Amino acid sequence: MIKTDKYGIVFNAMKSNALDDWKKYTQHQFVERIGNGSLDRKLYIKYLMQDYVFLIHFSRAWALLIAKTNSINEMRLASKTLNSLVNEEIQLHIKTCKAEGISEEQLIKTEEELNNLAYTRFVLESGYSGEFLDLLVALSPCVFGYGEIGLKLKPISKNNNQYISWIDTYFCKEYQELCISVGNLLDKAILDRLGNNFENNIIWPKLNKIFLTATKLEINFWEMSLRLE
Amino acid sequence: MIKTDKYGIVFNAMKSNALDDWKKYTQHQFVERIGNGSLDRKLYIKYLMQDYVFLIHFSRAWALLIAKTNSINEMRLASKTLNSLVNEEIQLHIKTCKAEGISEEQLIKTEEELNNLAYTRFVLESGYSGEFLDLLVALSPCVFGYGEIGLKLKPISKNNNQYISWIDTYFCKEYQELCISVGNLLDKAILDRLGNNFENNIIWPKLNKIFLTATKLEINFWEMSLRLE
Amino acid sequence: MIKTDKYGIVFNAMKSNALDDWKKYTQHQFVERIGNGSLDRKLYIKYLMQDYVFLIHFSRAWALLIAKTNSINEMRLASKTLNSLVNEEIQLHIKTCKAEGISEEQLIKTEEELNNLAYTRFVLESGYSGEFLDLLVALSPCVFGYGEIGLKLKPISKNNNQYISWIDTYFCKEYQELCISVGNLLDKAILDRLGNNFENNIIWPKLNKIFLTATKLEINFWEMSLRLE
Amino acid sequence: MIKTDKYGIVFNAMKSNALDDWKKYTQHQFVERIGNGSLDRKLYIKYLMQDYVFLIHFSRAWALLIAKTNSINEMRLASKTLNSLVNEEIQLHIKTCKAEGISEEQLIKTEEELNNLAYTRFVLESGYSGEFLDLLVALSPCVFGYGEIGLKLKPISKNNNQYISWIDTYFCKEYQELCISVGNLLDKAILDRLGNNFENNIIWPKLNKIFLTATKLEINFWEMSLRLE
Repeated sequence: MIKTDKYGIVFNAMKSNALDDWKKYTQHQFVERIGNGSLDRKLYIKYLMQDYVFLIHFSRAWALLIAKTNSINEMRLASKTLNSLVNEEIQLHIKTCKAEGISEEQLIKTEEELNNLAYTRFVLESGYSGEFLDLLVALSPCVFGYGEIGLKLKPISKNNNQYISWIDTYFCKEYQELCISVGNLLDKAILDRLGNNFENNIIWPKLNKIFLTATKLEINFWEMSLRLE
Repeated sequence: MIKTDKYGIVFNAMKSNALDDWKKYTQHQFVERIGNGSLDRKLYIKYLMQDYVFLIHFSRAWALLIAKTNSINEMRLASKTLNSLVNEEIQLHIKTCKAEGISEEQLIKTEEELNNLAYTRFVLESGYSGEFLDLLVALSPCVFGYGEIGLKLKPISKNNNQYISWIDTYFCKEYQELCISVGNLLDKAILDRLGNNFENNIIWPKLNKIFLTATKLEINFWEMSLRLE
Repeated sequence: MIKTDKYGIVFNAMKSNALDDWKKYTQHQFVERIGNGSLDRKLYIKYLMQDYVFLIHFSRAWALLIAKTNSINEMRLASKTLNSLVNEEIQLHIKTCKAEGISEEQLIKTEEELNNLAYTRFVLESGYSGEFLDLLVALSPCVFGYGEIGLKLKPISKNNNQYISWIDTYFCKEYQELCISVGNLLDKAILDRLGNNFENNIIWPKLNKIFLTATKLEINFWEMSLRLE
Repeated sequence: MIKTDKYGIVFNAMKSNALDDWKKYTQHQFVERIGNGSLDRKLYIKYLMQDYVFLIHFSRAWALLIAKTNSINEMRLASKTLNSLVNEEIQLHIKTCKAEGISEEQLIKTEEELNNLAYTRFVLESGYSGEFLDLLVALSPCVFGYGEIGLKLKPISKNNNQYISWIDTYFCKEYQELCISVGNLLDKAILDRLGNNFENNIIWPKLNKIFLTATKLEINFWEMSLRLE
């Protein structure tokens, strides 16, 4: 069994409250086919291209998170994640796509599909209309879900799996440490704003609703990724 | 042929640039079934409930538009539309649903579907991340498209059509005047910011892209409305 | 003694926590000179012109408040206030200035002073970076303070006071009802988000800080209004 | 004469249009007293503490800038500046204040003065209500003005000037390169959105107004820094 307790107490509580959809997301057919290497290469490339567009908007949302706090500690932690997205994860997509013959110019021109757009605009708008916590919670399912997927797939994947470098990206120490760091940020942010007794706070259900919606939007993203348009 | 020239020169230019998708939106099977009265009542009720949630977020976006201008004239025109949404169009949905045995409490608890969410969050985020024009353009396809649909369906609909009051809502003088008023707002806003030669302005393609995406999200909304989940 | 308990329990609690500055604001020399009619007419005109610019941005902030809630009831109440600002209070300024020989065109071109700008940008940014409550609290000192000033000045003002129509604007039934309506909105919004025990909620001090800062910005506005630049 | 042409063509054009106020800002008495070492140490410490609070909000505004673009290149450049603010410039303030016996805890609790608040809230709100360019222009006078001041003061300052490390911070290669990088970002952003003929673009005056207001807010900040409250 995957131990993700280290991602923090708030994440674990929210995951429990959204467990059915959380499983549909992290155990999706797309994930399984990555894990056993059976995913059609064309679908993988399509996914990478859509995910590139996703990462641009997801990075914007992490930047917005910094704008929504006055705490220098929260600013530092969020800007660490922002950097890792802009300067590492996006670069990896560019490199991988280049190896497949897709230039960065082509990547930038990728036509964003509506299931993709739905997710990032929901996250960004949660941030703009709500406050720091709403946005941080909306960002969580992507960060932690990919961490869980990395932990789950690595032990069951063969080294000649064509998608091993994708799996390694989310299994590796750097990404797992990022998840722990974001987990700490989330735990601390919740304690500072809702108090120790956070699960009884009047706005806890609203935050769980945001977590659930973002999880459904992840499933929606995988569904799109199994279709060639 | 429907004369929608009166909705203004900017709308007409943008519609021409998105004509294929504009037709898919305004001539969608859902629209046709409303027009000939053949739409399954269950689908209609489902649509009304989703549209109630849509109107809440769409009204929020019109309110945001007011926050994004310093012009008292633009504020007045936008707040007229906001009022007509909050105090008239939403009320109509509440009344119609009540007649179907759905209370306002139930309406408020409607589970928002992802195709619905995608649309309003795109509109709101266009406003928050962009400027006044981006938001006003994102709001346009809904306003003008329903106006066109009202004009198109009324002459071909029988009086005993079970959806005649829906058709009348968008055919009636008040709604058509609203379209003209929004059309004037759009034309004036474009002239003030892009100049007379607006179609050669460097940001014109970006605005047309927003119009096109919102049009695609309308089609996506009708698709959802033909499915019972 | 002025009874403002009717403005609601949250306002009264916040006012108590900011009492020194609240008095400096509502009993400012500018207010006293309005009340006894001794204010230099030039200063009054200057104040009206700055206040016109203030009301534009203040209305934008009320519009933003609507964008920051999903509650149809909160939307309705906030849009009532927005209307009363855009269609009544601003119109009154235009009319009064016109009588003084200042056209609306001149009003629109008023050079916004920095003390004026400081206030509305603080309010708007509280809303954009924070959530619904932060914004509503930031909007409160202006609404309620003018209500209190109207109640205080009316009984001690002579009918031949040159500023009697200004005093009547904030003493009149319509404005006092607006204050009560905003007080109810604030009380309800706090109960819904912080619970009954709101004064022990972890974010209560943050909200009181916002109230205090907006109160200081009111004092700052009066200071500016006693200077001719 | 100081050569700041290297900060880019847009900055130079905007500076020319705001020249009187630009000089009042960059040649302010506060700046002169830093340059000849005559500034009261108490005023310097007060300035550092207010500037710490300023930098928190200024960093938030740079983060917001990233949220307001879809261009990966603009995101990269802006996140470089954000990092240099959060991880270098703010750290320098903490270190300098520590040497003066002021802990980071005290710094965080600094009571923000209204002239300070006015500036950052204006910048942030320009970004939230406007678009990428409005925000970038609002951020410019601070970045470039400090660069100019560093270039001006260094050659005329003695090595035993008590403020030499402050002067070096803005004279040093790293800071000057940051100015050049931001100048490139601004030039490119203007060309992409307004075209080559940007000085004739209909929104050019609006952008210059933002530049001018931010410059006035810098003067306002220096005025505050010469007063002990």
